[in-house]
Amino acid sequence: MRILASSSAWVFAFVSVAAVACGGNEASAPPPQAPAPNTAPPDMGSKPAAVAPASGPALRLADNDEGMWTFDRFPAERVKKLHGWGPSKEWLDQVSQRAVKLAFGCSGSIVSPNGLVMTNHHCVSECVSQLSKKGRDYIAQGYYAKSEAEELKCPDFEIDQLSGVTDVTSRVEEATKGAPESEFHAKQRAVKAVIEKECATSDAVRCDVVTLYNGGQYHLYKYHRFQDVRLVFAPEFAAAFFGGDPDNFNFPRYDFDISYVRLYEGNKPAKTEQHFRYSAAGPKEGEPIFVAGHPYKTERLLTVAQLEYVRDVEIPEKLMRLSELRGALIEFGKRNAESKRIASTELFDIENAIKAYTGRYQSLVDKEFFARKVNEEKRLRAYAAAHPDLEKTVGDAWNAIARAQEQYRDIHLAHGILENAHVSSLFKLARALVRAGDEIPKPNDQRLSEFNDAKLPALKEELFSPAPIYDDLEALELESYLTWMRAALGTDEPAVQRALAKETPAGLAAALVRGTKLKDIKVRKALFEGGKAAIEKSTDPLIQLLRRIDGDARAVRKTYEDTIFGVVRKNGELVAKAHFAAYGQTTYPDATATLRLSFGELKGWEERGKPVPPMTMIGGAFERHTGKEPYALPKRWLDAKSKLTATTPFNFVSTNDIIGGNSGSPMVNKEGEIVGLIFDGNIHSLGGAFGYNAANNRCVSLHSAAILEALDKVYGASRILAEIK
Amino acid sequence: MRILASSSAWVFAFVSVAAVACGGNEASAPPPQAPAPNTAPPDMGSKPAAVAPASGPALRLADNDEGMWTFDRFPAERVKKLHGWGPSKEWLDQVSQRAVKLAFGCSGSIVSPNGLVMTNHHCVSECVSQLSKKGRDYIAQGYYAKSEAEELKCPDFEIDQLSGVTDVTSRVEEATKGAPESEFHAKQRAVKAVIEKECATSDAVRCDVVTLYNGGQYHLYKYHRFQDVRLVFAPEFAAAFFGGDPDNFNFPRYDFDISYVRLYEGNKPAKTEQHFRYSAAGPKEGEPIFVAGHPYKTERLLTVAQLEYVRDVEIPEKLMRLSELRGALIEFGKRNAESKRIASTELFDIENAIKAYTGRYQSLVDKEFFARKVNEEKRLRAYAAAHPDLEKTVGDAWNAIARAQEQYRDIHLAHGILENAHVSSLFKLARALVRAGDEIPKPNDQRLSEFNDAKLPALKEELFSPAPIYDDLEALELESYLTWMRAALGTDEPAVQRALAKETPAGLAAALVRGTKLKDIKVRKALFEGGKAAIEKSTDPLIQLLRRIDGDARAVRKTYEDTIFGVVRKNGELVAKAHFAAYGQTTYPDATATLRLSFGELKGWEERGKPVPPMTMIGGAFERHTGKEPYALPKRWLDAKSKLTATTPFNFVSTNDIIGGNSGSPMVNKEGEIVGLIFDGNIHSLGGAFGYNAANNRCVSLHSAAILEALDKVYGASRILAEIK
Repeated sequence: MRILASSSAWVFAFVSVAAVACGGNEASAPPPQAPAPNTAPPDMGSKPAAVAPASGPALRLADNDEGMWTFDRFPAERVKKLHGWGPSKEWLDQVSQRAVKLAFGCSGSIVSPNGLVMTNHHCVSECVSQLSKKGRDYIAQGYYAKSEAEELKCPDFEIDQLSGVTDVTSRVEEATKGAPESEFHAKQRAVKAVIEKECATSDAVRCDVVTLYNGGQYHLYKYHRFQDVRLVFAPEFAAAFFGGDPDNFNFPRYDFDISYVRLYEGNKPAKTEQHFRYSAAGPKEGEPIFVAGHPYKTERLLTVAQLEYVRDVEIPEKLMRLSELRGALIEFGKRNAESKRIASTELFDIENAIKAYTGRYQSLVDKEFFARKVNEEKRLRAYAAAHPDLEKTVGDAWNAIARAQEQYRDIHLAHGILENAHVSSLFKLARALVRAGDEIPKPNDQRLSEFNDAKLPALKEELFSPAPIYDDLEALELESYLTWMRAALGTDEPAVQRALAKETPAGLAAALVRGTKLKDIKVRKALFEGGKAAIEKSTDPLIQLLRRIDGDARAVRKTYEDTIFGVVRKNGELVAKAHFAAYGQTTYPDATATLRLSFGELKGWEERGKPVPPMTMIGGAFERHTGKEPYALPKRWLDAKSKLTATTPFNFVSTNDIIGGNSGSPMVNKEGEIVGLIFDGNIHSLGGAFGYNAANNRCVSLHSAAILEALDKVYGASRILAEIK
Repeated sequence: MRILASSSAWVFAFVSVAAVACGGNEASAPPPQAPAPNTAPPDMGSKPAAVAPASGPALRLADNDEGMWTFDRFPAERVKKLHGWGPSKEWLDQVSQRAVKLAFGCSGSIVSPNGLVMTNHHCVSECVSQLSKKGRDYIAQGYYAKSEAEELKCPDFEIDQLSGVTDVTSRVEEATKGAPESEFHAKQRAVKAVIEKECATSDAVRCDVVTLYNGGQYHLYKYHRFQDVRLVFAPEFAAAFFGGDPDNFNFPRYDFDISYVRLYEGNKPAKTEQHFRYSAAGPKEGEPIFVAGHPYKTERLLTVAQLEYVRDVEIPEKLMRLSELRGALIEFGKRNAESKRIASTELFDIENAIKAYTGRYQSLVDKEFFARKVNEEKRLRAYAAAHPDLEKTVGDAWNAIARAQEQYRDIHLAHGILENAHVSSLFKLARALVRAGDEIPKPNDQRLSEFNDAKLPALKEELFSPAPIYDDLEALELESYLTWMRAALGTDEPAVQRALAKETPAGLAAALVRGTKLKDIKVRKALFEGGKAAIEKSTDPLIQLLRRIDGDARAVRKTYEDTIFGVVRKNGELVAKAHFAAYGQTTYPDATATLRLSFGELKGWEERGKPVPPMTMIGGAFERHTGKEPYALPKRWLDAKSKLTATTPFNFVSTNDIIGGNSGSPMVNKEGEIVGLIFDGNIHSLGGAFGYNAANNRCVSLHSAAILEALDKVYGASRILAEIK
């Protein structure tokens, strides 16, 4: 599992210089694929020698299931050609209204007229953990609300339902026209803030300006926002994540990675006329199946210099940091049962991120894959070079991006550590409070982007969330962070001196946790409402720490935004222009956490010469059961064994092109029925961040038959079954 | 500090496919440097267009202090030209007799007629830790033997003094002549075993056949072996490693990283007529200074394909593994004071290894550095291509090595985990016992190389060492290893199934530690002496585990040795031949843990545009003192502050070309006096594994004036001072 994508989770805790701004959701441009010799793009036929130097024209989708398509450009004809059936506009409209977005980085689907939403267990596990207490461990035991009254509000949750998309490209481009690279980002940020504010007419409306095609297009996504979301059902962690970390991103699998939550409005279940029904049969071999969800980010048009940065600097550094935290949390969890429970959610995210980055890394150090990216870039640059007008505009873009990457190598540590690190809950709260004091009094369009008016509801929800904060875990994370800071930046670095003075990382971390009052929501409210004056007067040691290093952090952020991000963004737009010139807009944009539809079919793959069958059965779970974590089925499953049909399909793989953020997406058939629930991809799917490989890129789903059978026979969840049937 | 190189320590726990066999000490070929336009190698002048395609002839030492020279080819004339003075043969002979090798990967020097040896604290810290017990923590308190009777035997130590070097190239080459690649390694291993056995006429003689110039030469190194080595003096860890991990591999530094041990023979101090004296003045600016020591390994003639493997696979994987263990050990150390003490030595090695690998990695992802390596290879291949006879013999060698690297990518995980991992003390003992039972009955030349007759004394010392073993640490390390094995190889892998069956990594690790009797030396002796029959009958769970996976481990080792290592070795010899043809043997071989001499001068460098001065003073340590680890000077130093001269030089940097294994090397002046003690290199020196960069590669030494002053005024070590003066 864990193709989740959360801006607060590890996978996306650092943003790549490649294509992502500090605020989240950004885009690069459409993904080329293996060249198809017989179908040159129109512009390229005339100068084959110059523009297609190697094995014929490139940058064309191969005849396979590649693509995370926007609904307005969905290639229905193509799907029909490949799979014998293509969706109508009505089909597309209905599916798009039934798919929802979990704000912190998952997908979901509406499955009843009363706001019931299906998603993955791992998409709600943070809520499940927050609702747990000593002796009431819903992660271990699972949770099932037998009545509406037992549906528990998730402390820190938001689900958004898309209500409209508007093209705002010309307005955004107008604002940055003629801007030098160093001002490009600031100007773009400002116009986006204005547009988003105009759109967000109430707290129940969420508006995001999204970059598509690497800056070729800007769209305004408008959502109905639900912040009252309540937990209805979650299975035991041991069932949801059977096989644990060793089986994660692998197949065969036997995971019941599902949960149900409900949308509330005005303290009542929301009315949701548009909703999916389930297919008891599931996917049939050969028929087309579709995934509607919110893939968070792909970077399929990164330049080679950007890919080298990701390969040589970004991923290895992240993997080291994550590995160290993994080791620490495993040991931390051995202190006692409570520490194990506290560590488990974080550990789970970290192990998932380690696998996710490892998969991406493996694609980048795959010489064949990397050579393909190098060749694609060569071809596109040759195409530009062969068209003088284009060359004049975009010719230097690749070099400019490469120079920015070189500069980023110099400051990435300072940027990553001082400004862009995932540290701990308290650290994050303290920084948000310190900066809110400075930012909110400024005009909307001059603030750091996360303080735009349109972003304030989300900010407030986070600031005043009753989610529990654990002192021991905070101390561990703060110490680890301060140790890392000192080691990576050096004892003599002024920011390090300002942070630590004569203290040790362990000593300071302990003092911060002991002294801070930020666990108290009232204290946070007072600091937020008191603004800059309250912050300046505060004697809270964590507030004081964040104030001491805020100048350093802002300075490196500014350097990054002005001299690196802006350059990459502006020149990325130019690369996108070259791409449009060569191939038109007939393909899909990179994933940007917006609603997409991918298509495919049930299909296994070959792993080291051996075929991997596409489906497992419920009986297999009992065979794999050892009685010990992570292969220990929960008691409910063991008790229900005789009632279950061993041959009921459990998990399956298909060729749909997905990525992190698609967790919880419904898999639907041509009747628009749910045949499965996406919860993972195989290890090869992770390289999908940079390109789709039809041979072995597979997504992993929970089969609809297993959902229906286990809800009934294992969980006796008659209330849910009655509602979804 | 920590330019230590230990075959049992983390830095060298995995061997690179590049140039190292399972037995240790191996070599590649001489290191090119920045091209010097006016001095083309003789063969290259005639065909400049073909053989020197880019910026003129390459592969020539620049006019700088590069080189870890063997004493028989030391470039005295060159040093004279650069530094105004070059050593005579007498000078070289004397220095070579006074330098010793610490068998597990450090260097040392004889400094009295009674066997007194100076080395680093971090080279004896394992012994210091082993001699410590609860309430008697010599790591924290330091140790000083006020009389001979108080000199404590290190449980597990060996120091070797070189007694002769013989060229055995023709004999080795004869044995592998005409052998196919798949048999190359086995045949070479066999002839080396025969040669070493002939030479090792008693347990007091150690003999190693060493590969030089990547297989261009094979030399037999014969040593006088001392296994009775006793601790005389060690300072407090806090003084030796002042600045700790954050300052490690950085400068300015203030470390008193020194220790003294004594060689014993027949239970009496050994007589050592040849010994160094100290210079009270230390190094003067502009005068040449020399490092005599045992650099463990450089790989300056790796092919580009090998460097890519190291960059893309080997180092990132190691850094992840080490980082995870680092996190675990830091948390483990928080259980209580004893666990902190137990974890500290291992943690120290791990943090050191992380920095060491990080430094190397940084050089490989430095685009300029990597491009230099690519160009050097292009030039050498062009040179070969321009000489038909040479091309016929060596033309395919680079491709063959590249193919082997590709194959290694497929099996490196299985090889690294099943055969080649650093796991834990008990695991290592169990494997050695299991294999000894199989190997020792075989003819000497057919055994796995570490069981050759010539290696048995070292094996026995390790097997029967009284070094303490800590259950909790063993459990942590075994669990971590088993978890890694399952995650990396997959739950369904037969070797993983054989190792774990239905157990969890944590459960099996706990059961192994609970059940094994291998902590008892008598039990180990009985199993060793009882041979295969005793091993087969043993119910010890750790012996049984190692037996269960031994077939898998041996199989992957054989695949590696036959299809990868042998290919790399054989073709590496061919690359060396091309190198000799182009440049002769006028340069130095890669480091191979044999005695070398490097030259240089006191000199700072520029770091991000700012000059780093070459020397610190004792007063600076007191300024850096915060009272908290790792910046807490021990009480003895604080008490002595008023007696110390603040302006006495403390640590200094110089241009000498060194690498891991040089830890503890004496730095000597032209009078042959000790002016310093090597204990570290700066971060840039770590890339020295692949090439020397004169601009910023620096080694770090403890100044002789600080040694003499602190022994007197801080430690009152009058017995040592009397002996060395």
